[in-house]
Amino acid sequence: MSNNNIINFFLNPKSVAVIGASKNPTKGGHRIMDNLISNNFKGKIFPINPNSDGDLFGLEFKKSVLDIQEEIDLAIFYIPNQKIPAILEECVKKGIKGAIIEASGFEEVGDKGYELKDQILKITNNFSKIRILGPNCMGLTRIDESSNSKDNEKGGFFTSFAVFYKYKKGNIAIISQSGMLNGGYLMYLMEKYPDLGIRYSCTIGNKMDLSEIEFLESFIEDPSVNVIAIYLESFKNPRKFIDLCRKARKKPNKTIIFVKGGITEQGQKATLSHTGSIAENSQLIKSIIKQSGIIHANSFYELFQYARTFSMMYTENKIMPKLGNISMITGSGGAGTIVADITSKYNLKFPDFDNKMYNILLDIFPEWMPPNRFALIDFWPAMEKAMMNNVNPGYLMTSVIELLLKEQNIEGILVMLFCSGQFRNFTNYKYIVESIYHTSKPIFFWLIGEIKEVKKVNRLMSEKNIPVFPNLEEMTKNFWILVQDSKNKIFY
Amino acid sequence: MSNNNIINFFLNPKSVAVIGASKNPTKGGHRIMDNLISNNFKGKIFPINPNSDGDLFGLEFKKSVLDIQEEIDLAIFYIPNQKIPAILEECVKKGIKGAIIEASGFEEVGDKGYELKDQILKITNNFSKIRILGPNCMGLTRIDESSNSKDNEKGGFFTSFAVFYKYKKGNIAIISQSGMLNGGYLMYLMEKYPDLGIRYSCTIGNKMDLSEIEFLESFIEDPSVNVIAIYLESFKNPRKFIDLCRKARKKPNKTIIFVKGGITEQGQKATLSHTGSIAENSQLIKSIIKQSGIIHANSFYELFQYARTFSMMYTENKIMPKLGNISMITGSGGAGTIVADITSKYNLKFPDFDNKMYNILLDIFPEWMPPNRFALIDFWPAMEKAMMNNVNPGYLMTSVIELLLKEQNIEGILVMLFCSGQFRNFTNYKYIVESIYHTSKPIFFWLIGEIKEVKKVNRLMSEKNIPVFPNLEEMTKNFWILVQDSKNKIFY
Repeated sequence: MSNNNIINFFLNPKSVAVIGASKNPTKGGHRIMDNLISNNFKGKIFPINPNSDGDLFGLEFKKSVLDIQEEIDLAIFYIPNQKIPAILEECVKKGIKGAIIEASGFEEVGDKGYELKDQILKITNNFSKIRILGPNCMGLTRIDESSNSKDNEKGGFFTSFAVFYKYKKGNIAIISQSGMLNGGYLMYLMEKYPDLGIRYSCTIGNKMDLSEIEFLESFIEDPSVNVIAIYLESFKNPRKFIDLCRKARKKPNKTIIFVKGGITEQGQKATLSHTGSIAENSQLIKSIIKQSGIIHANSFYELFQYARTFSMMYTENKIMPKLGNISMITGSGGAGTIVADITSKYNLKFPDFDNKMYNILLDIFPEWMPPNRFALIDFWPAMEKAMMNNVNPGYLMTSVIELLLKEQNIEGILVMLFCSGQFRNFTNYKYIVESIYHTSKPIFFWLIGEIKEVKKVNRLMSEKNIPVFPNLEEMTKNFWILVQDSKNKIFY
Repeated sequence: MSNNNIINFFLNPKSVAVIGASKNPTKGGHRIMDNLISNNFKGKIFPINPNSDGDLFGLEFKKSVLDIQEEIDLAIFYIPNQKIPAILEECVKKGIKGAIIEASGFEEVGDKGYELKDQILKITNNFSKIRILGPNCMGLTRIDESSNSKDNEKGGFFTSFAVFYKYKKGNIAIISQSGMLNGGYLMYLMEKYPDLGIRYSCTIGNKMDLSEIEFLESFIEDPSVNVIAIYLESFKNPRKFIDLCRKARKKPNKTIIFVKGGITEQGQKATLSHTGSIAENSQLIKSIIKQSGIIHANSFYELFQYARTFSMMYTENKIMPKLGNISMITGSGGAGTIVADITSKYNLKFPDFDNKMYNILLDIFPEWMPPNRFALIDFWPAMEKAMMNNVNPGYLMTSVIELLLKEQNIEGILVMLFCSGQFRNFTNYKYIVESIYHTSKPIFFWLIGEIKEVKKVNRLMSEKNIPVFPNLEEMTKNFWILVQDSKNKIFY
């Protein structure tokens, strides 16, 4: 099978055997079964456990894959490492084409682990008889429909030993050498940010066989994927990785965001005990990242924040900024000042207004407090004036945003919005959102005020793929990242 | 009055007049009254408005301060700038000693504003007759009791035109040239982080008279204040500022955290239109910060996050780390790797274990996955082993934390905790919290998993002043900040 075919095979199997399925809900093998079933895996599922009788979730236990008549595409292993070779041998005999091995205790533990690996190489005839994902991973997830869809439509293919309840289908594909990106952290993120839309999450662990290369190759061609978020502790094939990233950069609708674990000496000591990765030296890593021309995030948090931002922009077909010319509307001069400093750091600029636009603003602002000549708008005095004249400041803000969006030299807008029942002016959030969400330029928000109101507005914006950020730096930095990606793109 | 006395006078007046008090709830003058009354200001309050009759919140309107027989300490102005001189003159006549002016439209708008300033200088005889806070500010707040105290005990002295409902009394004092730090942003923060304990929040606006200097001088001596969080757009007196910071650094229980707005050229353009501050050049600013030896935050968000961390440490009498030797307990090897990289950046180290400690860990870990020799503990295999042996991994984690805390060369611990009902092991959070909160070394947490569980654990930790961070970098950076502050301290 070609790489795309093999990944397609792992992500869309017709039947799976769960090796180590268990009635005991504290066991991983139980939770994998739960995760598959409660998330509506549409294929066949065979629970395998030589020590179990009866059935689990209505499915009959078998002692071995060899006891099954039907064809099995994938075997998902959740058993201790020492027991794997014997059962893998049975899988080969049965003609199973792929295995996900979630147990650890291989290369990362030294000699004993390497012995195990040698056995696996022999059994699989260097992975020609059966392909392997892992070991030391948390499987993969394919989301077809969000968890809030109808009960019989939600789900997809979920093989993590952490059970997922809340998720949104989206255009992000994750490739990760850390299991928790298909486990506790992803679970947390998808609940905390219900607007984070995921298509696939694939953990590759020690990548004994399948690695970032095969997944990356597949996702670059997958039309359901716009954003590829990658965490690696080592590169399987740096040259190929760079080539694939270059290929992605030629596509207008693909963005790769990358975090590297083990850049520093201290980090490299950690990777060795984690995935057995013998890390490249720092200079080489930096050079690979640079040549790849991808977005480099410094942490998991940044990885997912950037991924969400791009995901929303792609979903809404936004025109990505290229020059870094922005405007800001702020209710606080202090916030404006801080953002002005931050934008300098990221080479973003507030262009000067032409006379036409300036005169419009002049009219909106009170005489005693004229607006800036440049595109940083300290909006409070204008709102005060509006209120004095019984004009609703929310409508005023919307009009100003709409005017700014028409300015050719402004590529996007940052808005600080004060959400509070105390101030009459800010009650028509819904109007603001409805008026601006469909526009072609990115608009980012920072919300402050009463938590209850902030949450309400946040929800409205989430639904329309308008990104909201927890602070000014992150808002600004994410805009900069859009500009970065435009610069990375290769067009002929 | 000395500086300390004048600040004490502004923060603890016995009687206030609200100039511009209004029955109209959309007006700032109404909200100031509301804020004072609903937050139990214990002094006398006089609503002043020549256009209003009857009463407001049961208090009779007066046309002018001159119509009041009783003594008035402070006047709080919420009227348009042009009307201020005439009424300020009446305040002087009445013998009022201080005024808070919240209106804008002074130095920051150029010539017209300067004319107003000149009038004020004349009326106040260069502030010898009456002291001024502002203009262009959001007043000040003194918190005596948290909002969840009994109704007749909660509150203090609240003069912002944004009404505060939720707050916690604490040991942080804010000095800010941005109004929103006593308005929408502070409101947001105090609701979002119920563990953020504030003692004072003072906005100084254009600092026509009172400035950061007087407040800083006062808070350094105030025993109820441990953490001083400052936002400035310009320095009133750099030399004096540096001297005061140096004085604070000699005190073991004071930490100053500082954000400067208008460091870059773009930021400086913004400050000019905000508070009329003519900013120092970037080199000078950096030199002032360096000589001050205070903690430099890059943004409001960092300012308050650092402030919260120090506040919790002081409240619980933690021993601050001096060398940067830490340990980490993580359920995810990937998270451990990322933290290892981040700690390198901040010069934090994971010391090697001695044989005794290593042997204890060796016993806890499964044979196939021994622990690291250095203080980064990838805990998952140990938890799996514990579960197999029917040992509760929560108890195990607590014991390990307790052992680590006894290690002389470990100054604090970072913990990644997976919060989920799915995994039996993590259900005894309460036990973990109760066992470790009183220890003398800092322990920071990063929580992931199911949101509901995360929130529950977060709440438990908040109550015990255990800081929880939203991501790994912030957790690590905040530990580094503690080390930084220890290095800044001057002891003889």
